[in-house]
Amino acid sequence: MLRWEVYMKKQVVIVGGGFAGFNAARILGNKADIEVTLIDRKNYHLFQPLLYQVAMAALGEGDIAAPLRNMLANYQNITVFKGVVTNVDIENKIVITDFANISYDYLILACGVQHHYFGNNQWEEYAPGLKTLAQAKEIRRRVMEAYERAERTKDPVERKKLLTFVIVGGGPTGVELAGSIGEMSRYTLSKFYRNIDPKLTRIFIVEAAPRILGSFHPELASKATRSLEKLGVQVWTSSMVSNVDENGVQIGKERIEAATVLWAAGVTAIEIGRTIGVETDRIGRIIVGEDLSIPGHPEIFVGGDLANFAQENGKTLPGLAPVALQQGRTIGRNILLDLKTKARKLFRYRDKGQMATIGKNKAIVEFGNIRFDGILAWFTWLLVHIYFLTSFRHRVFVLLQWGWSYFTFSYGARLIVNKEWRFYADPDPCVNHGKREKPE
Amino acid sequence: MLRWEVYMKKQVVIVGGGFAGFNAARILGNKADIEVTLIDRKNYHLFQPLLYQVAMAALGEGDIAAPLRNMLANYQNITVFKGVVTNVDIENKIVITDFANISYDYLILACGVQHHYFGNNQWEEYAPGLKTLAQAKEIRRRVMEAYERAERTKDPVERKKLLTFVIVGGGPTGVELAGSIGEMSRYTLSKFYRNIDPKLTRIFIVEAAPRILGSFHPELASKATRSLEKLGVQVWTSSMVSNVDENGVQIGKERIEAATVLWAAGVTAIEIGRTIGVETDRIGRIIVGEDLSIPGHPEIFVGGDLANFAQENGKTLPGLAPVALQQGRTIGRNILLDLKTKARKLFRYRDKGQMATIGKNKAIVEFGNIRFDGILAWFTWLLVHIYFLTSFRHRVFVLLQWGWSYFTFSYGARLIVNKEWRFYADPDPCVNHGKREKPE
Repeated sequence: MLRWEVYMKKQVVIVGGGFAGFNAARILGNKADIEVTLIDRKNYHLFQPLLYQVAMAALGEGDIAAPLRNMLANYQNITVFKGVVTNVDIENKIVITDFANISYDYLILACGVQHHYFGNNQWEEYAPGLKTLAQAKEIRRRVMEAYERAERTKDPVERKKLLTFVIVGGGPTGVELAGSIGEMSRYTLSKFYRNIDPKLTRIFIVEAAPRILGSFHPELASKATRSLEKLGVQVWTSSMVSNVDENGVQIGKERIEAATVLWAAGVTAIEIGRTIGVETDRIGRIIVGEDLSIPGHPEIFVGGDLANFAQENGKTLPGLAPVALQQGRTIGRNILLDLKTKARKLFRYRDKGQMATIGKNKAIVEFGNIRFDGILAWFTWLLVHIYFLTSFRHRVFVLLQWGWSYFTFSYGARLIVNKEWRFYADPDPCVNHGKREKPE
Repeated sequence: MLRWEVYMKKQVVIVGGGFAGFNAARILGNKADIEVTLIDRKNYHLFQPLLYQVAMAALGEGDIAAPLRNMLANYQNITVFKGVVTNVDIENKIVITDFANISYDYLILACGVQHHYFGNNQWEEYAPGLKTLAQAKEIRRRVMEAYERAERTKDPVERKKLLTFVIVGGGPTGVELAGSIGEMSRYTLSKFYRNIDPKLTRIFIVEAAPRILGSFHPELASKATRSLEKLGVQVWTSSMVSNVDENGVQIGKERIEAATVLWAAGVTAIEIGRTIGVETDRIGRIIVGEDLSIPGHPEIFVGGDLANFAQENGKTLPGLAPVALQQGRTIGRNILLDLKTKARKLFRYRDKGQMATIGKNKAIVEFGNIRFDGILAWFTWLLVHIYFLTSFRHRVFVLLQWGWSYFTFSYGARLIVNKEWRFYADPDPCVNHGKREKPE
């Protein structure tokens, strides 16, 4: 144990510094009789909803992320470690990491989900997902490198393949990626190339379900499809990807030759639930009770994408930032209530609605029965994201860059710095089973 | 040849998009009867004088770099390719690249220099240099990772090693790196760590010459040394590094145990001069005549760090941004003069002075016989760098970030994104001999 000098205080260990873990930590920060240890595989908290903008070079990595230890610096009772959790001894209440064993009185598991390739992990190399900054920058590199190579080639077939982009998955992330590539190719890139016409870029969204944006009202999804089509995006619904290789995507008997394939489809929970032997759902999320603790283990809480929380209507809460944020706060408060020997609060999700942006002045917003799209939705999207950005500095700089891009229609620097790393789905801080080790 | 349709125009091929190549291109842009092809291994132009600020997380990569094709987009006669030049057939006037063979009427070689490890290339892995964005981000990762590991370890010897930084080379880059680490450790990091005191960070500059900043007046160098010492930097002069390994640096019989070693010492020219068989100096720079062309080859110009240009006093011009910039412009103008069948202009360097910054409010400036230091020098440094930044957007965003950091004494986001790549000295676009291939 690292902090052997504080026997008396309650030890809270948080695994994962995303929306759930970070907000739990803030609730517990500077509270008496509590020592918090936050462990994350990365050294930063990431504002995930804007990650696709880093992938598309609209924002820099520093605009949507900040080191966890900076953000939590004012809480004297919180220690942050960059490290990897390898197991949890739930009998003896010890978290086993790659640098120390840490005892806990309370454990908060908030290590999220990773991309799921339907049992075809070899697709990952050809179709990176979008969960971490490194992945965002790899997507940026692949997209820009495709244009560079298209500019150089004399072979028209090769050129067509290089100017073809397939996005697997028609949820908000897939739609936002496709819309960004469409907008960039139609409005921004054309004046930079001499041998190719970037307007000829072909973009496909391949979605297994009968329509894209399944969580939205059909009317909004249909409007989003129209907006995408205006940017040259073809939406293929009821289309199941049967293979991905370095030259494209197979969809049953059909095939698209594409140099760049991006993955925005299924997710699966980090395997920690199965590792420690608690009840999980089909995709590995840990089943939690109404107070967000694991049944039979009131000292272990689970929050964010890793938690399977059944609402009153029986539906599991989706993996959204507001859900994780609210869960993190409730977990923190429940620990404080325990220390006061008061009854725990039961978690109820206050629906913040959902939204997605397709391009400049184009977005869809759904809040209960209120639905709207177009420029008003776009400004709503913009204001909500600025508001929820984690620090004042981030707000200022993101707003400045968006303002600049909006009025000049030019984006930030599309630099190809280098091939970042070969891809490994494991995006988050939790358990490392040695199966797919990230080269860090 | 890629642009076979333009037989009539003079073909100018530029290898390298740094200060020399980029400014030559701008002079030739949109001029009649000229077609320009610019080839660079990277897709961006880099404002190298501020690269150490990216390494220290004071600026983001997008703040000091922009894609070459964006910056040259308004010149319809310039085609930019991201590619690698493998050789030049100077008899038949053909540049051989990894994607095509390109004929030229004029060739401009401006591919710069790379770090030189005095024949010990194996040191590179333990002591990265600072010539590219990827290297800057690797240095950032190593420095921040050292603090993360120090926070985790319980071994005081290991901790001391992790909090020790050695910079080999006492030129402006070495001084700026050491000053930044000193300032960061003394003023910024301490409130973020619980188990270590970043103020105990040990920083060494190891310089072979009898004093640091040899190109400056001794009085200014001495003032810089005092400023460095106030930030906890020890300056070891007349100290020749005899070995670098993963645990530190050997200097003759003395040894410093250090987890992080950075290289800011010797440079050597990209090997293209020797490859094409023209006269080079001891470190491989190509000897050029007064019009910046290679003697005997009036159609081949060399500019920037790769050129060895002897001044009237016999001294070779140093590898500075203003030298490269002025040479690029003169080369461009000399090609235009050729087309008008006028006599070429002989290159004369207009001395812009030199400056270096040590930390907040501390810098040294030398301009002919004028020398000053302190806050006035620091503001001069700041204004000159803002002024020479390549675009208005860069100027605005760099100034905003500096203003923010200045008044809050907090820097930008110190994110550890990932291990970028194993190190390879070859930083620039020129010849790739297959000896040390960058994994791009």
